[in-house]
Amino acid sequence: MKLLRVGPVGQERPVVMDSAGNLRDIGEPEIDGAFLASGGVARVRQALERDELPVVDPEGLRIGAPLARPGKIVCIGLNFSDHAAESGAEVPAEPVVFMKAADTMVGPYDEVLVPRGSVKTDWEVELAVVIGKRARYLGSREEALDAVAGYAISNDVSEREFQLERGGQWDKGKSCETFNPFGPWLVTADEIADPQRLPMRLWVNGELRQNGDSKNMIFDVAEIVRYLSQFMVLEPGDVINTGTPAGVALGLPGRPYLRAGDVMELEIEGLGRQRQTVGQA
Amino acid sequence: MKLLRVGPVGQERPVVMDSAGNLRDIGEPEIDGAFLASGGVARVRQALERDELPVVDPEGLRIGAPLARPGKIVCIGLNFSDHAAESGAEVPAEPVVFMKAADTMVGPYDEVLVPRGSVKTDWEVELAVVIGKRARYLGSREEALDAVAGYAISNDVSEREFQLERGGQWDKGKSCETFNPFGPWLVTADEIADPQRLPMRLWVNGELRQNGDSKNMIFDVAEIVRYLSQFMVLEPGDVINTGTPAGVALGLPGRPYLRAGDVMELEIEGLGRQRQTVGQA
Repeated sequence: MKLLRVGPVGQERPVVMDSAGNLRDIGEPEIDGAFLASGGVARVRQALERDELPVVDPEGLRIGAPLARPGKIVCIGLNFSDHAAESGAEVPAEPVVFMKAADTMVGPYDEVLVPRGSVKTDWEVELAVVIGKRARYLGSREEALDAVAGYAISNDVSEREFQLERGGQWDKGKSCETFNPFGPWLVTADEIADPQRLPMRLWVNGELRQNGDSKNMIFDVAEIVRYLSQFMVLEPGDVINTGTPAGVALGLPGRPYLRAGDVMELEIEGLGRQRQTVGQA
Repeated sequence: MKLLRVGPVGQERPVVMDSAGNLRDIGEPEIDGAFLASGGVARVRQALERDELPVVDPEGLRIGAPLARPGKIVCIGLNFSDHAAESGAEVPAEPVVFMKAADTMVGPYDEVLVPRGSVKTDWEVELAVVIGKRARYLGSREEALDAVAGYAISNDVSEREFQLERGGQWDKGKSCETFNPFGPWLVTADEIADPQRLPMRLWVNGELRQNGDSKNMIFDVAEIVRYLSQFMVLEPGDVINTGTPAGVALGLPGRPYLRAGDVMELEIEGLGRQRQTVGQA
């Protein structure tokens, strides 16, 4: 299933896209950790099969992020060898972990703001994993995949000067306002036959900049979830950004960082498309 | 005022301690970002002055963290020169920023768990700042202090091997389960005459290990809040752990890291005391 949230910022309502492409009200208060933890996906599936869900008129509706109030956003760094190389970094021996403020999440078509004082705002197309079941010291890859509710596109927007040149830890360049466009859909795990066979692309102003595939991840989704659960408890509604392939501005000739007016488009097979116009904070 | 949350885990109720030391029901659903953003502190103060709040029997009540559902926990690293020195790090030129998963927050007397596989679990007494007003690109120290709702004690528990020896960023050793005991009180900012004159101490098994004062912070509270607001939006209910003085296990002879059965006690003047027994995950 493809779960969505539609409506004005802060007033989104949760819907599901049926097989004909219609949006239907899911009859639940939200798509969030409580929804996922309480079997919400199964309830919606059953209601959809019984044709109990009313159609919603999509006309003029904004598409928001398909997850409300994520508890935390955990990110995996340097998870594609080509991106590690372009960043001048070693291929990591175990997953590199950092965090992004959960309130950076915005809708897939919302504006992304270049922070004040920034000259190195960059893009990163990523496969996002949404946790559906509490994950703590998982013992196997099977348990790890069982904890995954679904997948979405994430743009892990990053400010490279803040991240790399202002002292300390990467987090400083990862949590700026609007820095995590997410969606359009939360695609339930059953619809993704293999999360490690997903072409992922990103264009800036129509020019293809990233052209990767999740098959090239150094650490795959099952390993990332299993690994993270040794260091922290993953809760329903948590998000993991699993890393970006080569082609970010930091690694390109001339370092063409984002400026107000630029347009980013992102696509992951089966997960839809995003499009953001860049503004100035 | 001293705001608290009392009751079993997940069923805490918000109360205020009156001048006689009695706990009184505040008549609000929670002490959280929404409460702080909507003038909750002023409402409770008025109700307290009018003697409208019923006394709560404290008998047998657990004291939980005095803040529900923090949006994010932002931490400042190496903010005391003596701690930077014991960590073998340079005194930073600007604040070092990292993040801690918000779901690590536990009550001030709750058990702290040594993670599985950990041999370097460490303590850090810190002055925590709770944000009461949205802070975005603040222009002055006055605006920064005006965004502070209050203060609390935070134990920024850290796993040094995960943090420093497992590749990548510090966050990996900062977000383990139970790693942020918080409270007992959220003391409103008006009660703290000067947040930079607060003695702060931590004992392990009765032995004084940290004996600092917030006056020795490299970056003070006003500067930290102003600075962070240039890199991220701080929202009501967000928490900032402002850094720890010298005396952590990492910096002590023999590196006496925490083991199950150890007892930590923490104190910051005006903010009360914490006490945690260490268990094993």
